Amino acid sequence: MRKIRLGMVGGGHGAFIGGVHRIAARMDGRYDLVAGALSSDPARARDSAADLGIGADRAYADFSDMARTEAARVDGIEAVAIVTPNHLHAAPAIAFLEAGIHVICDKPLCASMEEAEAMAAAAQKSKARFFLTHNYTGYPLIRRARQLIAEGALGAIRVVQVEYAQDWLSRVVETEGQKQAGWRTDPAKTGGAGAIGDIGTHALNLATFVTSLGVEALAADLQSFGPGRRVDDNANILLRLEKGARGMLWVSQVAVGNENGLCLRVYGEKGGLEWGQEDPNRMTLNRLGEPKQILTRGGTGSGPDWTRIPPGHPEGYLEAFATLYDEIADVIAGSERPLLPGIEAGHEGMWFIEAALASSKANGAWIARR
Amino acid sequence: MRKIRLGMVGGGHGAFIGGVHRIAARMDGRYDLVAGALSSDPARARDSAADLGIGADRAYADFSDMARTEAARVDGIEAVAIVTPNHLHAAPAIAFLEAGIHVICDKPLCASMEEAEAMAAAAQKSKARFFLTHNYTGYPLIRRARQLIAEGALGAIRVVQVEYAQDWLSRVVETEGQKQAGWRTDPAKTGGAGAIGDIGTHALNLATFVTSLGVEALAADLQSFGPGRRVDDNANILLRLEKGARGMLWVSQVAVGNENGLCLRVYGEKGGLEWGQEDPNRMTLNRLGEPKQILTRGGTGSGPDWTRIPPGHPEGYLEAFATLYDEIADVIAGSERPLLPGIEAGHEGMWFIEAALASSKANGAWIARR
Amino acid sequence: MRKIRLGMVGGGHGAFIGGVHRIAARMDGRYDLVAGALSSDPARARDSAADLGIGADRAYADFSDMARTEAARVDGIEAVAIVTPNHLHAAPAIAFLEAGIHVICDKPLCASMEEAEAMAAAAQKSKARFFLTHNYTGYPLIRRARQLIAEGALGAIRVVQVEYAQDWLSRVVETEGQKQAGWRTDPAKTGGAGAIGDIGTHALNLATFVTSLGVEALAADLQSFGPGRRVDDNANILLRLEKGARGMLWVSQVAVGNENGLCLRVYGEKGGLEWGQEDPNRMTLNRLGEPKQILTRGGTGSGPDWTRIPPGHPEGYLEAFATLYDEIADVIAGSERPLLPGIEAGHEGMWFIEAALASSKANGAWIARR
Amino acid sequence: MRKIRLGMVGGGHGAFIGGVHRIAARMDGRYDLVAGALSSDPARARDSAADLGIGADRAYADFSDMARTEAARVDGIEAVAIVTPNHLHAAPAIAFLEAGIHVICDKPLCASMEEAEAMAAAAQKSKARFFLTHNYTGYPLIRRARQLIAEGALGAIRVVQVEYAQDWLSRVVETEGQKQAGWRTDPAKTGGAGAIGDIGTHALNLATFVTSLGVEALAADLQSFGPGRRVDDNANILLRLEKGARGMLWVSQVAVGNENGLCLRVYGEKGGLEWGQEDPNRMTLNRLGEPKQILTRGGTGSGPDWTRIPPGHPEGYLEAFATLYDEIADVIAGSERPLLPGIEAGHEGMWFIEAALASSKANGAWIARR
Repeated sequence: MRKIRLGMVGGGHGAFIGGVHRIAARMDGRYDLVAGALSSDPARARDSAADLGIGADRAYADFSDMARTEAARVDGIEAVAIVTPNHLHAAPAIAFLEAGIHVICDKPLCASMEEAEAMAAAAQKSKARFFLTHNYTGYPLIRRARQLIAEGALGAIRVVQVEYAQDWLSRVVETEGQKQAGWRTDPAKTGGAGAIGDIGTHALNLATFVTSLGVEALAADLQSFGPGRRVDDNANILLRLEKGARGMLWVSQVAVGNENGLCLRVYGEKGGLEWGQEDPNRMTLNRLGEPKQILTRGGTGSGPDWTRIPPGHPEGYLEAFATLYDEIADVIAGSERPLLPGIEAGHEGMWFIEAALASSKANGAWIARR
Repeated sequence: MRKIRLGMVGGGHGAFIGGVHRIAARMDGRYDLVAGALSSDPARARDSAADLGIGADRAYADFSDMARTEAARVDGIEAVAIVTPNHLHAAPAIAFLEAGIHVICDKPLCASMEEAEAMAAAAQKSKARFFLTHNYTGYPLIRRARQLIAEGALGAIRVVQVEYAQDWLSRVVETEGQKQAGWRTDPAKTGGAGAIGDIGTHALNLATFVTSLGVEALAADLQSFGPGRRVDDNANILLRLEKGARGMLWVSQVAVGNENGLCLRVYGEKGGLEWGQEDPNRMTLNRLGEPKQILTRGGTGSGPDWTRIPPGHPEGYLEAFATLYDEIADVIAGSERPLLPGIEAGHEGMWFIEAALASSKANGAWIARR
Repeated sequence: MRKIRLGMVGGGHGAFIGGVHRIAARMDGRYDLVAGALSSDPARARDSAADLGIGADRAYADFSDMARTEAARVDGIEAVAIVTPNHLHAAPAIAFLEAGIHVICDKPLCASMEEAEAMAAAAQKSKARFFLTHNYTGYPLIRRARQLIAEGALGAIRVVQVEYAQDWLSRVVETEGQKQAGWRTDPAKTGGAGAIGDIGTHALNLATFVTSLGVEALAADLQSFGPGRRVDDNANILLRLEKGARGMLWVSQVAVGNENGLCLRVYGEKGGLEWGQEDPNRMTLNRLGEPKQILTRGGTGSGPDWTRIPPGHPEGYLEAFATLYDEIADVIAGSERPLLPGIEAGHEGMWFIEAALASSKANGAWIARR
Repeated sequence: MRKIRLGMVGGGHGAFIGGVHRIAARMDGRYDLVAGALSSDPARARDSAADLGIGADRAYADFSDMARTEAARVDGIEAVAIVTPNHLHAAPAIAFLEAGIHVICDKPLCASMEEAEAMAAAAQKSKARFFLTHNYTGYPLIRRARQLIAEGALGAIRVVQVEYAQDWLSRVVETEGQKQAGWRTDPAKTGGAGAIGDIGTHALNLATFVTSLGVEALAADLQSFGPGRRVDDNANILLRLEKGARGMLWVSQVAVGNENGLCLRVYGEKGGLEWGQEDPNRMTLNRLGEPKQILTRGGTGSGPDWTRIPPGHPEGYLEAFATLYDEIADVIAGSERPLLPGIEAGHEGMWFIEAALASSKANGAWIARR
């Protein structure tokens, strides 16, 4: 099977999510990482590239140069992963789309609704495709949950409870030189959002992905508990979804004891389901009037879809992420993979951020999605 | 040890909570049930009394008669348990308080704020004491949680997440002759509230009991998902508590697969704790920068307080309820037991119900506690 | 409903299991504790009785005197609970059986096979009944498990894994004045057994109760890890049960971190089930080729049998114990309750103890049940 | 970083573990798979190679040819993964060791003690290294457990309970054309063992790896529950380990409801720890007299060793496997990685198999390790 030539923007030494993208791209053996603008610091860009086996001639200091040069090469990259902080998504994404190179972009989409519109326009015009790595949609049981709901296993959805709790910002570590905390709590780099952008967009995406229901309105109460912190680190949000479903969304980065607690619970007329990211290989399915069921990844009632190894052999975060890369490879090879998140999901996320900020400013007034 | 002579109003054949009160009163051997107005139906009152070994002369058809007669007997009851539907709490409570008989009243306090004020006034004037059975405060680990927070183990509280999810009203069983569902979904008997009164008051009480923080304001979005249902069966509520703590409260009686899912999570500057009523003998304690701890009832770090049997031998709902009765017996015998909920907790619950109804009517506007 | 007049032998100040029996007897309101020989120390016997509201004239210093005197009274006790250490079961049990008074005896049955035979003979001759409080059989889901297996839900049983792990003897606390540890590690009082008698008999009983399969043979490897300890504190045992089922039984009182870890797993041709005493309100049921099911006490698939309160309101150890007392009251009132353990279960337990000791002495040779 | 040239023997279409090895080798980007003798069927070998991007000239039909040819190439493979059924491990392993090519061999080591001795001799003589993929030793918390015990956190070890339960052979699927079941239940291909070889060797290895205690003797009771099955599908085994530790080992492939239930519990004088493979990112640590602790992969108390992503982002089976490949690459590059299992672990496993078969034949007699 021919491998896809992949480039990367961001993800040099000291970054987090770039390394995750690289493992995800390697997992199923369908990509070769051959070019990169891995850092805005030239020396770091060069050294990082060398460590990854990227030839010196394809280690770029600048993404525009990279887009132009790679587009011109016979063996140029076919796709690029953008793994920079939020405020550095839009420009490279547009550049590569314009160069006809597929874009695999980390979330949230960008740093403002204006950027989002520009990215959507670029994606619209390009022959290349745009993918957004809402990686939690790659978990097999999350896809199974979506399928169950689409098939009507829960009946009409009534209640959605979603939360994403972490604790790594319980102390004000951004003042202690922690690089990840640094840009994630800097409004200039995030677009103004804190937890709602970093993890809130994941939570919202998970809820709408699984239920196939869009959000109609939200009412938000945001807090910045960390002394001196300039972005939200906790958010309590009421949701109104399509078809009368109602819910709540909680995100926190100061909930001591929570590592990466993304949890979704959905209840309908006829059933309910419950899933947590830290134990992703099992999901509770409650059918009204029947005993509680535990579905396992790959096990009875879930089937072999989107998995690599038998039930009981845990797959995790990296495998879910890799499933996105695997399906993106399918799309690049000409197939359709309708579960992959794209510009639409990114737009919804940007609305969520802006609406949450606006609602909280307005003392929790409902903000409707246009 | 001398036993306390106890009476009961409500709790005849077909009732639920009356039986629970009786087991709770028997558990530690400190009460004798000797009188009752167990039903407003005279035949049922008589038969129910006979089954419970209450002499025919002390099986009353009417609570006023009972209060008067028992107060006049040398061997009259010292305390009465009121276990009727909400709208039938105030009148008997006031009658027994006026008769100088201690009142042990089920929750919520009553059916309106006016009744609450009248009960408070009666309690104020009486030499007898008033107790409200917010039974979940009787769980040993809940009391330990309160203690830990009071001692500062979590630092200043930031976030409170509390929920109480059930599923027994997923279908409209009140139209099928289910007695419990009948009165609990009848606004005339509940005072207008559904889930928020029946279980929401428990959730709120648990949160304020454990944190020692009062609620300052709430914003509520209530739903009645059951077709034709006249009271709320789901409520999504934002909370603002004292000292800057913020939170959410979710109650539902249509969350399929939840039996009695009362769960509390509290996070502060220095730690977090998590407890669920269905697994009440363990609590998670997270101290910032230390491994997660599991405290067990009676085990290391929790101590022997408020328990009867060694760790690992599960105690449950009935034992927690009985602990209230045990401490009430102490109070009647002349000691103080400051953890017992009383008229104040009841008043807070009535405010919660009225505020939630008002906020939801006003599209989620914040309602402050006066 | 008329209450049964109950006496107690043992269970004075400082004892553990006596208090449990008393709560169990009170829970459902069917007994009055009216007489006792609560301690072999006359002062402690008298004081303990007074605290329990037992009249001074019925506070005996000696069980023989009690049996004789109570049998002669018009209002004499109808049943007696024997809650002394193992080596003091046989004599009072026989005395009360001979006096025509029903015996409710704690486990293990006694201290030797000879005593067991004598007790069986006395029970045989008496018009009174003999009950053995293998209290774990009172858990609703354990009874449901037995029912499921009897109905064939698992098919022919293949594998039984049972274990009972505690840690309270990890240190040699018997040398530090801990009363419970004192007699339980004194071979003269236990009959020679340590953990295998104290908790191993419970584990074995649970396995045979649930599967309805007797043990045919065992091979045991016993250890005394506590320095200087004279009885076993850990036992690794292979089991051969009827109809070709095979299994293992592990008991330990030195397994640090285990409070009261009695767990049973049974696997058959068509299914498996798993239950743990510390979380007794749920049981896993695996039907071959179907998703895993979680049955809850009182919930769908388990039914309301042997429970007092709705699903989700946890019942525990005391309620399970009380269910034995409740059914014993039924038997005394003239009904049959076939699930109650009696002399047969006691005999099996005594064989288990003797066989485990003999096998271990013979380097793990198989010992068959005669 | 230069990549290591890797070959593979076995692992063609329809195989299971070969695909796992390939993902493990890809995960951290340190290997290139460039040659293979993927099947004994020439057409399948060729097609499988093509699918994996192996050049036609390096797709061998025969491992001897491959060893000889690759050893002679300037760009020949440096290491080979052997992923054939048990009875086809020894010959290729010896051939590649003799050719000076590092061997990464799946477990169990081989099909007989004689083969084991021959492999050990070949490894001894070769300049190349031999690695055995006891992949469960790659889990970060398992390595942390070993470390904790080595540091004395549990004190002297007393009790080891290890089990590995599956259910995929509950029915006799080997008669239905299931390829995996076919060879794994064929004594000619396994060397006579069933579950004890396939998974029992993993369980034993895990126990000895974590405790650093060898086995001194075992007593086994093996069963073949599947009608007509020629190898064991369940085994109940008593263990005696070094320094007085005692334990039990249970393996089953007929325990309905168990997917891949490898669980280890170790108890010492001062503490205990408990870990299960299906939830590998958390481990319970019990220190005597302290509350139970939950250590998480990468979290407080566990540290960042052997992990790729932050706590709360679950890693699983493939990552643990990949950690072996990662460390093997270190060794090939010249470093030592003392945790990697090699010929010694393989030899212990072969003794375990032979001893279990012999003991069971001798009605559970103890077999000592020479």
